[in-house]
Amino acid sequence: MKNYRLTLCYDGTKYSGWQRLGNTENTIQQKIETILSRLTEQNVEVAASGRTDAGVHAAKQVCSFRADTEMKCEELLQEIRRYLPQDIGALELTEAEMRFHARLNCTGKTYLYRIWISEQPNVFERNYLYTYTKPLDIEKMKTAAAMLCGEHDFAAFTNAKHMKKSTVRRIDTIEFEQTEKELRLYFTGNGFLYNMVRILTGTLLEIGAGEKTPEEIPGILESRQRDRAGFLVPAKGLILLDVQY
Amino acid sequence: MKNYRLTLCYDGTKYSGWQRLGNTENTIQQKIETILSRLTEQNVEVAASGRTDAGVHAAKQVCSFRADTEMKCEELLQEIRRYLPQDIGALELTEAEMRFHARLNCTGKTYLYRIWISEQPNVFERNYLYTYTKPLDIEKMKTAAAMLCGEHDFAAFTNAKHMKKSTVRRIDTIEFEQTEKELRLYFTGNGFLYNMVRILTGTLLEIGAGEKTPEEIPGILESRQRDRAGFLVPAKGLILLDVQY
Repeated sequence: MKNYRLTLCYDGTKYSGWQRLGNTENTIQQKIETILSRLTEQNVEVAASGRTDAGVHAAKQVCSFRADTEMKCEELLQEIRRYLPQDIGALELTEAEMRFHARLNCTGKTYLYRIWISEQPNVFERNYLYTYTKPLDIEKMKTAAAMLCGEHDFAAFTNAKHMKKSTVRRIDTIEFEQTEKELRLYFTGNGFLYNMVRILTGTLLEIGAGEKTPEEIPGILESRQRDRAGFLVPAKGLILLDVQY
Repeated sequence: MKNYRLTLCYDGTKYSGWQRLGNTENTIQQKIETILSRLTEQNVEVAASGRTDAGVHAAKQVCSFRADTEMKCEELLQEIRRYLPQDIGALELTEAEMRFHARLNCTGKTYLYRIWISEQPNVFERNYLYTYTKPLDIEKMKTAAAMLCGEHDFAAFTNAKHMKKSTVRRIDTIEFEQTEKELRLYFTGNGFLYNMVRILTGTLLEIGAGEKTPEEIPGILESRQRDRAGFLVPAKGLILLDVQY
């Protein structure tokens, strides 16, 4: 038995997210597991660094799985590539230490949210952008972003229904990259709750548009109430960019 | 009656090219004409700088049309954007001099052909790239490209069946841009024959892969025979990038 580390990228447009849900759903986990199980003639279970929701993309998603095969990594990688659909790509495959687990060992993640701020459409990247054309006060957004960084209870920033587990997370940085037509927000932290990056982005956009103020952030965090935070931006603008170990 | 200049972009993946072909075909010209005819309640005919073939994209395609409307350009542009499908975008609309005609006045065009040279797939831009992973001798490709520049009879580099019209064209520049994973070829000239950019690209790739030599170029041009030139690369990697007037 060997343990493997597989790095994937995917265009999540057509998928119901990462996680396998029974046998009929169209998930990325299911696609990968089906291919690996056939190639190795074993029942392979794949763990990812974390789930991505329906419609969310990944430029780099790290997975781990165990299998017993004589194939070398390079050969197995070629075979995986051969059977993957065009919207899922295998970037790298290496043998890992037996104790490596993509989710349990993950120490941080970076998500990118892409906001198209121009009236001129971008047809080529339309599935990876959210168009929002209200004028934005970027300085106010940066002030609010700074207040969101650090360790906080982000219960107000998740749509998770059952919150028995801790909703405390640490955001290390929220970085802004702006061009004439696009605003990119990069979120790096030790973990993100269900819908958290999308609600953080919606809240920052409402602050940029003058519908909320940065000064409201501490109260929203303290309230732990979802309806105090901003709107949920669409999944298509969200990309898992990097996973740290 | 006013004359308009409309700049479009489109993802050509799902279209049978620019040119209207009867009523049932899915062409970009037909989409635009249908929208403009409805908006102005007239039969509007749209001329583009040139046709693009099935599956070919445009980052900038210039069109002209005449219509009699009270709408201001900004208003008409908003209405056009409202009705266009997601894979066609209206970038600009301005009133033009009556004698302006997008095809007849066009003095040059720039096409980009994108070649993905890495084994690692690019899922996000997969519809705009041609993957070719044989090792390439870029210097040989550049030598051949220099021999293709200038005014030549490009009859060997077209799949046009009826060549009553002149097949002489002038290529001003063929520029190379290379990154670790991608090779971009930019072709600028006064006009391009049917499939010409794609056959030029296929020929350059065969030279890069050592299947042909740069020294064969003069003989291929002189032969005027299609089967002497290289293979036709797929439409999806081709993008009309700029139109000059």
